[in-house]
Amino acid sequence: MADSAQKDTHKDWAGDAQNASTDGEFKRDTNYIGDRILASVTGDNPQPSASGNGETLDWPVQPHRYRLIAARACPWAHRAVIVRRLMGLEDVISLGLAGPTHDKRSWTFDLDPGGLDPVLQIPRLQDAYFARFPGYPRGITVPAIVEESSGKVVTNDFNSMVRDFQTEWTEYQREGAPNLLPPAEQQEEMDEINDFIFRKFNNGVYRAGFSASQEAYEEAYADVFEVLDWLEERLAHRRFIMGDHITETDIRAYTTLIRFDAVYHTHFKTNRNKISEMPNVYGYLRELFQTPGFGDTTDFTEIKQHYYIVHREINPTQIVPAGPDLSGLAQPHGRDHLPGAPFAEGTTLPGPLPEAERLKNPTDFQR
Amino acid sequence: MADSAQKDTHKDWAGDAQNASTDGEFKRDTNYIGDRILASVTGDNPQPSASGNGETLDWPVQPHRYRLIAARACPWAHRAVIVRRLMGLEDVISLGLAGPTHDKRSWTFDLDPGGLDPVLQIPRLQDAYFARFPGYPRGITVPAIVEESSGKVVTNDFNSMVRDFQTEWTEYQREGAPNLLPPAEQQEEMDEINDFIFRKFNNGVYRAGFSASQEAYEEAYADVFEVLDWLEERLAHRRFIMGDHITETDIRAYTTLIRFDAVYHTHFKTNRNKISEMPNVYGYLRELFQTPGFGDTTDFTEIKQHYYIVHREINPTQIVPAGPDLSGLAQPHGRDHLPGAPFAEGTTLPGPLPEAERLKNPTDFQR
Repeated sequence: MADSAQKDTHKDWAGDAQNASTDGEFKRDTNYIGDRILASVTGDNPQPSASGNGETLDWPVQPHRYRLIAARACPWAHRAVIVRRLMGLEDVISLGLAGPTHDKRSWTFDLDPGGLDPVLQIPRLQDAYFARFPGYPRGITVPAIVEESSGKVVTNDFNSMVRDFQTEWTEYQREGAPNLLPPAEQQEEMDEINDFIFRKFNNGVYRAGFSASQEAYEEAYADVFEVLDWLEERLAHRRFIMGDHITETDIRAYTTLIRFDAVYHTHFKTNRNKISEMPNVYGYLRELFQTPGFGDTTDFTEIKQHYYIVHREINPTQIVPAGPDLSGLAQPHGRDHLPGAPFAEGTTLPGPLPEAERLKNPTDFQR
Repeated sequence: MADSAQKDTHKDWAGDAQNASTDGEFKRDTNYIGDRILASVTGDNPQPSASGNGETLDWPVQPHRYRLIAARACPWAHRAVIVRRLMGLEDVISLGLAGPTHDKRSWTFDLDPGGLDPVLQIPRLQDAYFARFPGYPRGITVPAIVEESSGKVVTNDFNSMVRDFQTEWTEYQREGAPNLLPPAEQQEEMDEINDFIFRKFNNGVYRAGFSASQEAYEEAYADVFEVLDWLEERLAHRRFIMGDHITETDIRAYTTLIRFDAVYHTHFKTNRNKISEMPNVYGYLRELFQTPGFGDTTDFTEIKQHYYIVHREINPTQIVPAGPDLSGLAQPHGRDHLPGAPFAEGTTLPGPLPEAERLKNPTDFQR
């Protein structure tokens, strides 16, 4: 940590055009705080992690100790919000939500009364990072888990965070929570697909939008539509990406797909076509959107405000488009002819959202 | 001319964000050079125009005297190119084409050998404006008609230019040229529709794209879709806007419609939906696109390059989107169930394009 502190300069989570390398390509900083919260840790104190060469800690699973800080806008944070809800961890890990816009100094709690997170009592997420690592030099990113009592950030590694909600917090999950991992024999395939989707799609749209050269843009654009064409074909005969039920892979795809027509298609210029023009992917996206945990955590107003207002380097006017018409997402998904269902038998859907976690800006078709 | 010379500052034809007024609204300078070329003028010399309070001239209709300067990119110039072709004036009025990109000093002939218009032998269109009006203070716009022998601009008023090609050049039009004006009893309705389409659609997309405030943008966006919704309804039972045949009104609509999905939807943020999502307007647009004079004068490469590269104030990266997929324009238009046809009986379609006027960048589906 100390070492990299001197090497890197402070960067926005989403990157910006200045993150383009000299050959014009956007490079995401994927160096996160590697701490984890694990069921195997006993006692109250975090322990040096076995795998972490002394730099990272493992924390004990404990209810009411941690706060997930997310932002409705952010696709990476959205993954954590969905999985927390599907697992029924709302009463165990609290949720703080940064507003959609922020400056170079990081996400702020400007939607909260007095501009302070009501639990952490800080105006900016960076305060939780600095509380633990003074002068923290990398991106102040969401999702982040913060220890409520100390106000110190624990981790911002969304991959392990999302996985650990599933596998480490089992004692506190709701009854009927789904299993989001595939059968063991599909695990390797899932890892490959997750990697493919991350590089060419989840991050591919950012690489397209933040390209500083026509060439780098066109390469990223090709990657994005390689994934979408692959999905269109795969979803013709599969209800979900891995098969009959929703897995973590679908959640990874969803948070990019649901932002695609609303933002990426226009703002990041990935405009060969909209998702609504791809019948299988669009039917699949509609089914996910209509499943509790997905559409009810998707705030299009905050999503659009975030991208169009924060990224002045690609939208200097900061005008937020009034379109597109997204009401088709509420139309019948037409996927019932395929075998499967969102979750396996024995699983239940999550109940209604806690009052405090309802969307601030539901669209007409989300009410 | 002298008066306004002191008042106005030099402006790009398309306007830019600096053209926004203090309330954030884009205002187009519609003050053009009012000279006309009229069949009633006898002799070689231009005459002071009866209606022009001494400031404008009327010029005689004469073949091989005038050169139309256009640019494939520009929707206003595109009108003149289409009408010249439908009227069969290719051998009578020559055509010069400026390239798609230009700087603040105006359109250039950078696609021509040596960067000079092959007839006028000038590198920039402004040279023709300055030859007539030294220090010409307003926009150096296309379309412009230039006298070949003197190199002086005659007019850049696209409304009268397009009308005069139809009504003043009759002696030189091809046999079988269509009548683009409606019956007398529809003339008033047509004028109203032309005005409605100009304000809310042709110029509406620019008002949306160049808005300096969210409020001005949303007003323009509403105007654009007011016209498109009106068109969608009107074209359900009418083959063309005024009725059974193509009129000037369809040409005015076409040059904006054909740029809509390719550019305006994204670049100008008029993104409620694409034209391809409006069945009647899209069928209508396909029929026009497939009619000689329309699709064969539409260069999507130059159109996209122009908007995305010239308007740095709204696209600072100058990256040109690779999409959208426009190949649907070549699909059957499905409008045959409606009464009518592109042109009335006794009219013929224009023949093949002269070799020199073929598109530089035809897409696969235009070959």
